[in-house]
Amino acid sequence: MNIYWSDTAKRLEPYVPGEQPQDRKYIKLNTNENPYPPSPKVLEAIKNAADERLRLYPDPECTVLRETIAQYFGLEKEQIFVGNGSDEILAFAFLAFFNPGNAIIFPDITYSFYPVYCGFFGIDYKTVPLDENFSIPVESFLQENGGIVIANPNAPTGKYMDIKSIEKILEYNNKSVVLIDEAYIDFGGESSIKLVNEYPNLLVVQTLSKSRSLAGLRIGFAAGNNGLIEGLNRVKNSFNSYTIDRLAISGAIEAMKDEAYFRETREKVIRTRERVSAELIDIGFEVVDSMANFIFIRHPKVLARDIFQKLREQGILVRHFNKPGIDNFLRVSIGTDSEMDTFLEVIKNIVSK
Amino acid sequence: MNIYWSDTAKRLEPYVPGEQPQDRKYIKLNTNENPYPPSPKVLEAIKNAADERLRLYPDPECTVLRETIAQYFGLEKEQIFVGNGSDEILAFAFLAFFNPGNAIIFPDITYSFYPVYCGFFGIDYKTVPLDENFSIPVESFLQENGGIVIANPNAPTGKYMDIKSIEKILEYNNKSVVLIDEAYIDFGGESSIKLVNEYPNLLVVQTLSKSRSLAGLRIGFAAGNNGLIEGLNRVKNSFNSYTIDRLAISGAIEAMKDEAYFRETREKVIRTRERVSAELIDIGFEVVDSMANFIFIRHPKVLARDIFQKLREQGILVRHFNKPGIDNFLRVSIGTDSEMDTFLEVIKNIVSK
Repeated sequence: MNIYWSDTAKRLEPYVPGEQPQDRKYIKLNTNENPYPPSPKVLEAIKNAADERLRLYPDPECTVLRETIAQYFGLEKEQIFVGNGSDEILAFAFLAFFNPGNAIIFPDITYSFYPVYCGFFGIDYKTVPLDENFSIPVESFLQENGGIVIANPNAPTGKYMDIKSIEKILEYNNKSVVLIDEAYIDFGGESSIKLVNEYPNLLVVQTLSKSRSLAGLRIGFAAGNNGLIEGLNRVKNSFNSYTIDRLAISGAIEAMKDEAYFRETREKVIRTRERVSAELIDIGFEVVDSMANFIFIRHPKVLARDIFQKLREQGILVRHFNKPGIDNFLRVSIGTDSEMDTFLEVIKNIVSK
Repeated sequence: MNIYWSDTAKRLEPYVPGEQPQDRKYIKLNTNENPYPPSPKVLEAIKNAADERLRLYPDPECTVLRETIAQYFGLEKEQIFVGNGSDEILAFAFLAFFNPGNAIIFPDITYSFYPVYCGFFGIDYKTVPLDENFSIPVESFLQENGGIVIANPNAPTGKYMDIKSIEKILEYNNKSVVLIDEAYIDFGGESSIKLVNEYPNLLVVQTLSKSRSLAGLRIGFAAGNNGLIEGLNRVKNSFNSYTIDRLAISGAIEAMKDEAYFRETREKVIRTRERVSAELIDIGFEVVDSMANFIFIRHPKVLARDIFQKLREQGILVRHFNKPGIDNFLRVSIGTDSEMDTFLEVIKNIVSK
């Protein structure tokens, strides 16, 4: 605490990102990064953009990138917003569409940044419990609210909500914005972006960090009705007109264009997820059904905290959330087949002792 | 206006950045970009960083970059914060150190993003008038306040406040944060960063966009007491943990290291500024004393708006602010000698007709 902090700074409870330790080489299965490199075309585009034009500001509206994304989804560029990672877009969206005093709703177990944004902007919220197998109960969102936020697939569970359920929520809540955070949608789910033209209250947020292997580049995007996108632009232009650098714009355009590479990579991740899930079940783990690039697992006898610690000692990082209801689970990102073979070998040893 | 906008989104008055028209090739003297390319070492570092590591998140704390900047100024890395351009840092600082209901002070003519941040975060402010030759009057800041923001050199005037005046303001205001925005300090001024160890209420913000020719990379930094830097980190980690991508980090480190290139470039800009100022005075312009990479000029007979329009028609962009007190001035960024020769030729013709 410092005497110069504002009242806001004093009451903030910041988000804690997954650890990025530098002390030794780890198999990193803790921050849901893609184990495969980005498309070679992305790297080439970035190298070509690393020239004297860096002295000039980037296009603050990211026009070409927005056009590329819009075309990908069959939308207009006025229906697309680009941000510095999906986190920045989520922050802007909370401020643009939710009001203090009119509580928004999200699941009690979900991306832990949502309550942080609420604290940041003074927005009230209530959480609704997941059902016993970690599904998000649709009925809980059919009630008065100031906005709805759903991660689909959900984090850290990986559980997917089908598009019909999303439509039911959209139809009931036509007076408030329904924000669908699709950071992990490309690993098997169906995107709600196809509903954007039908529902003016739908905002879908995606990221290039996971399925396009670009966590290091910081690009996310949102798709929604023109009016919602304009709201995001108003907030952005009251905060920082230029949030995306020239290199990231160039790389992101190629990432959206290289469909063959994208499909190949995500298929590999999905195949590995299914194989590893089956093997973990074989050795006694409970594995939540995942449509993401991670799995959420629990062992009936060995405590998650102990498994976490032993994995770490043996050079494998996974994520453990010290939170009631899920504190006996581990979230394990899907690595390469070879990384996951090592993981399986080590974890088998840990739980069989 | 859209029915889904929050009350905040409805009342925002976003910042309007300088135009970036794509219709033809212009001599761009309107957004204070550096006319010289970034250091070749920066470009090389970026190319080397454009590899498979982009699949991984960047270091959220930008440790190596912060160490590099700290070393440059003889500080500790805990006294340095890095942000996505200085605009992002200013936004974080307004939220971290200023409170609604306790008005902050800044000059009436200054960077037009300051009142936007106040609107964004609901912070009250009062402005103090510049004196008749556009200097910032020190005495105006020796009064009760909730914080102080001074651009030094000031924008869009280019006027510099000496470090003794800054110290006077710091001493008087030891209960509130004094934010010195030094976006243009490298073009002739003396940085207040040297005062950071003496004044726990001093936060100095700089950018790599101008003097290091990296507007396209989006890197700014702040220097201040550990407690202030921690306040900025709290805000950042409640908003977006990873605001700087891997490529920008790599490039920025080299930009801070290549001192010879930096000095050479800024000297060239300063020499051109002095030459162009003298020539404009020769043909009847009033030129405000500038320590920045732009000049603020007025012609006694021809209206700024008309000069602006005629320059534009002839392929030269400058900035005109339609604001009482300065609406007959133009802000002209310093380009290369050859660009400024063209500018001088065209503007001579315009005012002699």
